[in-house]
Amino acid sequence: MYREKIKIFDCTVRDGGLINNHDFDLRFVREVYKALSAAGVDYMEIGYKNSKNQFSAKEFGKWKFCDDEDIYKVIDGIESNTKISVMVDVGRVDIEDIKPKKESPVDVIRVASYVKDIDKAIFLVNHFAEKGYETTVNIMAISRALDNELNEALAQLEKESQAQVVYIVDSFGALYQETTEFLVKKYKSILKTKEVGIHAHNNQQLAFGNTIEAIIHDANFVDGTVYGLGRAAGNCPLELLIGFLKNPKFDIRPILDLISKEFIPLREKIEWGYIIPYAITGMLDEHPRAAMELRKSAKKEDYREFWEKLNAPGLD
Amino acid sequence: MYREKIKIFDCTVRDGGLINNHDFDLRFVREVYKALSAAGVDYMEIGYKNSKNQFSAKEFGKWKFCDDEDIYKVIDGIESNTKISVMVDVGRVDIEDIKPKKESPVDVIRVASYVKDIDKAIFLVNHFAEKGYETTVNIMAISRALDNELNEALAQLEKESQAQVVYIVDSFGALYQETTEFLVKKYKSILKTKEVGIHAHNNQQLAFGNTIEAIIHDANFVDGTVYGLGRAAGNCPLELLIGFLKNPKFDIRPILDLISKEFIPLREKIEWGYIIPYAITGMLDEHPRAAMELRKSAKKEDYREFWEKLNAPGLD
Repeated sequence: MYREKIKIFDCTVRDGGLINNHDFDLRFVREVYKALSAAGVDYMEIGYKNSKNQFSAKEFGKWKFCDDEDIYKVIDGIESNTKISVMVDVGRVDIEDIKPKKESPVDVIRVASYVKDIDKAIFLVNHFAEKGYETTVNIMAISRALDNELNEALAQLEKESQAQVVYIVDSFGALYQETTEFLVKKYKSILKTKEVGIHAHNNQQLAFGNTIEAIIHDANFVDGTVYGLGRAAGNCPLELLIGFLKNPKFDIRPILDLISKEFIPLREKIEWGYIIPYAITGMLDEHPRAAMELRKSAKKEDYREFWEKLNAPGLD
Repeated sequence: MYREKIKIFDCTVRDGGLINNHDFDLRFVREVYKALSAAGVDYMEIGYKNSKNQFSAKEFGKWKFCDDEDIYKVIDGIESNTKISVMVDVGRVDIEDIKPKKESPVDVIRVASYVKDIDKAIFLVNHFAEKGYETTVNIMAISRALDNELNEALAQLEKESQAQVVYIVDSFGALYQETTEFLVKKYKSILKTKEVGIHAHNNQQLAFGNTIEAIIHDANFVDGTVYGLGRAAGNCPLELLIGFLKNPKFDIRPILDLISKEFIPLREKIEWGYIIPYAITGMLDEHPRAAMELRKSAKKEDYREFWEKLNAPGLD
């Protein structure tokens, strides 16, 4: 028997955009939206809502800014119950860029925040909620959060924020099931009035396993991306989530078509997935930045040297 | 704090041999043995001990037969505490080919069996135990075992067999964590005097996650292969196991070198890993055979058609 409250949240174009400066062409994004809609996926996150005062529209593709007119070009003419989401980073958004919900094609705004910025995140999320959006707060780099600070942040989110969902974001792909269980139970115990979400990275091939673990302990918002597309090791493969979940509204076939036609050719052009340097940063609970640099260098397959470098004795 | 009883059981050359008719060259197999030995891996399974009356040595490589003289060529001159294992399939071995342990380079014999063949497996495993070997019984296709038959087989193994370890073998990569937990607890409850092992396939990227799940519930023998090499979707990546386990005797660096030097080039020549048709057979709890055929055909990326074919209405 399926749990109706479980929502699949696709972030293919948003997280995938971190590999190519958010420069997917309109045709591709429409194909993704069409397939997700036909598959019954609940949400599609299309990109970031970043300030054009801080980032140049010449350097970045359109999904770094997600202008309403671009979103309309994606969704126009496609029958769909899939809601559109954009992500906002604390400190990188001009809030006056966000129109009231009823004037916008966007349904959901997700605020990405570190624990230390939680006050700013609460301000933003309440502002967006008051404009009529569904909202979430996504706590990044959760594998590095100190327990006392995380407890306080969650208590504040429960008490002060209008966010409907609070996410565990395993930015470094460092979590194992036991810590995932620990975190979901902690979230559930403090966030009495909110749903819990999980956004997992696949450095150690645990994105799907940790997502199942979170579902077992009652997380209801689960992020995935088609064929695992995403920065570095990528994300929880959406097709596996659909294969696992029992809600009859989901149909895997449009996603299979999309992978055949779009993602197999795409993988020839841009790299993501299980690659040893990303596995190493995951094991060591590090940002994949150094591994991404390595993959652009002549030493891309020199794994031992990379391991030694990240394990070099530090400062005491 | 680490659990000393956990043993890493490498089956790179044995399970990988299922892709290339067991035809790895001696140099490659020596490199694998050298790296596993330096990494502190407990066991290396080198191939099958098959009857030459049933299989032609012209059609298959030497690791289908594992003659002692070939094993000596692998291990001679390499300092090692890694024990050597061979696998035996019920019905495919000539038991008179197996010398007493003290005359052989082999330490362990693992008997692969379906539930229905458990009486034959018990006969074999006791025969090998009496010849002095460490022994295991590996119950294949566990995701299809009927509960009453499995219970009886496990009770027989406990009562009648000298096997030291009994394995859960997820041949189809169909298990999720909850069933893994269910099975490990069942094994533990019946097999009071034996260890439990897990051999997971990676069709749904859950080989590592299910192996961790089994460890949590007290399985102590965990199979892995370097870079996940193995038939179809492959196996639990050994490097991830070493990254996860805390026993200070393990050293990941020789494995990283081995992947850089041998497995990255090998992956250009033979295919294994997360590939959608294997994910589909995993979701549907099917043998990967049909997917392996598909991958050799012109329709190798026609996932929807493959899905429809496997989901075609059957006989009532």
